[in-house]
Amino acid sequence: MDLIANLQCADQPGIVHAMTTAVLNCGGNIIENQQFTDHTTNTFVMRTRFETSQGLAAAEKSLGDGLGKFSPALHIRETAKKPRALVMVTKESHCLRDLMYLLELGELPIEIPLVVSNREDLKQLVESHGITFMYLPVDASNKAAQEKALLAKVAELKIDFVVLARYMQVLSNDFCAALPGKIINIHHSFLPGFKGAKPYHQAHDRGVKIIGATAHFVTADLDEGPIIEQDVAHVTHSSSPEELIALGRDIERRVLAKAVKLYAEDRIFIVGHRTVIFS
Amino acid sequence: MDLIANLQCADQPGIVHAMTTAVLNCGGNIIENQQFTDHTTNTFVMRTRFETSQGLAAAEKSLGDGLGKFSPALHIRETAKKPRALVMVTKESHCLRDLMYLLELGELPIEIPLVVSNREDLKQLVESHGITFMYLPVDASNKAAQEKALLAKVAELKIDFVVLARYMQVLSNDFCAALPGKIINIHHSFLPGFKGAKPYHQAHDRGVKIIGATAHFVTADLDEGPIIEQDVAHVTHSSSPEELIALGRDIERRVLAKAVKLYAEDRIFIVGHRTVIFS
Amino acid sequence: MDLIANLQCADQPGIVHAMTTAVLNCGGNIIENQQFTDHTTNTFVMRTRFETSQGLAAAEKSLGDGLGKFSPALHIRETAKKPRALVMVTKESHCLRDLMYLLELGELPIEIPLVVSNREDLKQLVESHGITFMYLPVDASNKAAQEKALLAKVAELKIDFVVLARYMQVLSNDFCAALPGKIINIHHSFLPGFKGAKPYHQAHDRGVKIIGATAHFVTADLDEGPIIEQDVAHVTHSSSPEELIALGRDIERRVLAKAVKLYAEDRIFIVGHRTVIFS
Amino acid sequence: MDLIANLQCADQPGIVHAMTTAVLNCGGNIIENQQFTDHTTNTFVMRTRFETSQGLAAAEKSLGDGLGKFSPALHIRETAKKPRALVMVTKESHCLRDLMYLLELGELPIEIPLVVSNREDLKQLVESHGITFMYLPVDASNKAAQEKALLAKVAELKIDFVVLARYMQVLSNDFCAALPGKIINIHHSFLPGFKGAKPYHQAHDRGVKIIGATAHFVTADLDEGPIIEQDVAHVTHSSSPEELIALGRDIERRVLAKAVKLYAEDRIFIVGHRTVIFS
Repeated sequence: MDLIANLQCADQPGIVHAMTTAVLNCGGNIIENQQFTDHTTNTFVMRTRFETSQGLAAAEKSLGDGLGKFSPALHIRETAKKPRALVMVTKESHCLRDLMYLLELGELPIEIPLVVSNREDLKQLVESHGITFMYLPVDASNKAAQEKALLAKVAELKIDFVVLARYMQVLSNDFCAALPGKIINIHHSFLPGFKGAKPYHQAHDRGVKIIGATAHFVTADLDEGPIIEQDVAHVTHSSSPEELIALGRDIERRVLAKAVKLYAEDRIFIVGHRTVIFS
Repeated sequence: MDLIANLQCADQPGIVHAMTTAVLNCGGNIIENQQFTDHTTNTFVMRTRFETSQGLAAAEKSLGDGLGKFSPALHIRETAKKPRALVMVTKESHCLRDLMYLLELGELPIEIPLVVSNREDLKQLVESHGITFMYLPVDASNKAAQEKALLAKVAELKIDFVVLARYMQVLSNDFCAALPGKIINIHHSFLPGFKGAKPYHQAHDRGVKIIGATAHFVTADLDEGPIIEQDVAHVTHSSSPEELIALGRDIERRVLAKAVKLYAEDRIFIVGHRTVIFS
Repeated sequence: MDLIANLQCADQPGIVHAMTTAVLNCGGNIIENQQFTDHTTNTFVMRTRFETSQGLAAAEKSLGDGLGKFSPALHIRETAKKPRALVMVTKESHCLRDLMYLLELGELPIEIPLVVSNREDLKQLVESHGITFMYLPVDASNKAAQEKALLAKVAELKIDFVVLARYMQVLSNDFCAALPGKIINIHHSFLPGFKGAKPYHQAHDRGVKIIGATAHFVTADLDEGPIIEQDVAHVTHSSSPEELIALGRDIERRVLAKAVKLYAEDRIFIVGHRTVIFS
Repeated sequence: MDLIANLQCADQPGIVHAMTTAVLNCGGNIIENQQFTDHTTNTFVMRTRFETSQGLAAAEKSLGDGLGKFSPALHIRETAKKPRALVMVTKESHCLRDLMYLLELGELPIEIPLVVSNREDLKQLVESHGITFMYLPVDASNKAAQEKALLAKVAELKIDFVVLARYMQVLSNDFCAALPGKIINIHHSFLPGFKGAKPYHQAHDRGVKIIGATAHFVTADLDEGPIIEQDVAHVTHSSSPEELIALGRDIERRVLAKAVKLYAEDRIFIVGHRTVIFS
């Protein structure tokens, strides 16, 4: 059985040794092992992938016993068990298309039991891929109720994380707080470059020579969550705002897909306001 | 004789035809011809490189007569006559080293008659390359006088443009206004990303996955002048602020050198707050 | 009416002037004008986009008369009339998916009246997008006949160019010769790096740190046609051949889509063994 | 004391645990730990950086005893002790300039006790940086003798590795065999793209849209040694061979400097024909 153990705790001597001992004690053989110490917060994080014939429970006991003294945040997952994502969209399809395309290609180790949208535009596209589509219109009057219904779905469908694939509604602080470090958003701009509306028009007005996109975790402060992945493309004076938007779509879908893949493979740790990513 | 004509005027029909006629009329043969119309400002810009045996004066008369009806901003230069740059530095040498290195390699078609600094740290480096070094200390009490002395040098040495190669003093609005579109600065950050002090520390705190540098023209609003060139590099959580600074140096020197080369070849037009660059 | 005129002829004085005169003579106003002289072959190429109310025929006559003395290859197209592409695939879908996706997004100014494949794997995908699918199995015994049938389709459907979107059959020299400069292939490697079979395995064995893809015109010598577009991605020792293939797919689809867009906008000139591209 | 231990052996269970035990046994605290298993050769490599107050000898004994049963290739270095590089050049200075520049900046943790050249062109440049320059002319008649003198210098000056910074002489197989995995070359091309002479002219003739450079270890088969680092830049039809060469210089110097830095920090392992690099 192939397992991934993610550990996060205060930095101190002996952690790696304790982990390797604990892995040996459950008959495990380490396949990958990555670690990092963030000195600004004195935080130690480690991702250990190992094989064992003794199963998940035995591994959890062995690592729990062996590492308990460091009172770590410890999470062990069987790699065969794919994380379940709830994808939220509005009317732009490019990010969703890429996720479904990679899923069908077998390159994205996740399940997508449900796509939720505040509009019906993408219903047919989603259902043509055999995925359930849920229409969840949102306005000031029903927002709280709709988000409650959404959280119910998250529980019912055993959702592991939420992907905002160009979902153009702001989620309430309560909703974000209910799923800390479990909501990934694609920001159609190179943060902290251009926040707010029409970033590509802002980029055009400013005459920038490079545009980009940013995938980040969602926190109460919408565009300020920990950054997961960013990419850019060179542009020139001849690019109209519309051309920047088209070019931006291509960057957005690649950056979001990359971030979702990193999350699905347990490669992301949130340390303070930053992410540690073992790629 | 090899000439470059740069023309900028309100967009209207017949400009290209008038230019090609005027070039023919002075016995010229067009080698390169690039044009662009900025629709947001209805501005037309054109860069025409041509050869003629009749010399600069004849070309200036022919183009002046033929294009006068468009009341353009028209500038004709003999390519053999290299633009003269005054380079300003403080104590960081990486951008200056690259400029001198490319100059010695014959890759940068400019002359550097003078390097000015508010510190003496780089005196020996500059003089070891056979370039005159001028120490010009600046404080609140003498700033106006020193900038006046600087402008006198610009006139005396027939300086075409000023390059701020990590010059850590803010120039007065009067000084900037005296050399509009003739001062190039390297901003050690990916604008509009991180302005102000210690951008690489800001970038580290924000946990960005990409850092960059920006070369731009200097206006009264220091970091808001028209952008000439930008480049970036991917970074990870493991990069310390010091490592980001080191990586940033490499981007800065390349971006500034590229911008200076574009300027030296008359490839940059300022249109509103943006640049049009014929690369 | 918006027109694009592409001209190619031996370099000589007066061409630009003749073009601008001819455009004026048919009441045209130049919107874009790009030119380049390839000194290795003394070839001059120019792409001129202009507006005229007098229509295509008048423009063709005016430019034909005015430029005839240069005996150019001259091609004028109404931009509203989209080039028609025949796309050929085998069983890999990523490049085809991207083309259809961009088409539906309105970002790719072409029509795809037919997709041809030597296998039936992608039939449903193609038809679900409302595009006709033609199954054309090929083996040694029927190759000549099948290619003849294909050329008949090209004529019948008024196909302007053929896109090999991961078509894994080698076309005969006769077929290539019948459509010179009209067949675009995506090579799943960074030419001239790794030719032949399994380039990503070759790349892995060689331990390269960068992989890429190349879009090029097809000539009798399969991998040696003029290169249109290339892109790359950095990789590490940890990437398995399978991971390189997955990463390669992402590069391939972007590079092919870019090349098709350049072709569809008449931005590509073939000069000797190289391409001149006005982007 | 800050130490780096590099270990390479056949893959088997318990290695990481043995390492962490051995580090604890000499009072060490692990700061960095990276590992990788190459499945094609079943080779395990690990780089462990740790601090201990017991000194190098104690660490060597503890790790030697604890890991001996894996019969590994084990190398432990005190990070304060900088590797010593012998740099070889001919007449092009750009790579050498970058190495000296980064050295003076304090960004390259090496010592350069000697620069050797088969020409005298760069003598003054080298000596102006306070580095000893050795003129070692080579022709068919004296090559063996000169290489013997060179190996004597390597021994006398306790050289750890040799950097060919655009050294345009082919080293004999005997010389390469005498310093296995200790000679780094910058190939002025994107391998395996263009080998042999004038790669940028080859690239221009082929009309490639991207050029690059490759840093690799030197083996008897000159351009086929394990690749350390590669980088590229986009080019267009308008770039002349001379412009490609100039652009190539900028890539070459960055790629070589990066490779030397990786080597100086013990981040490179040679596994079969490939490198494993812990960046």
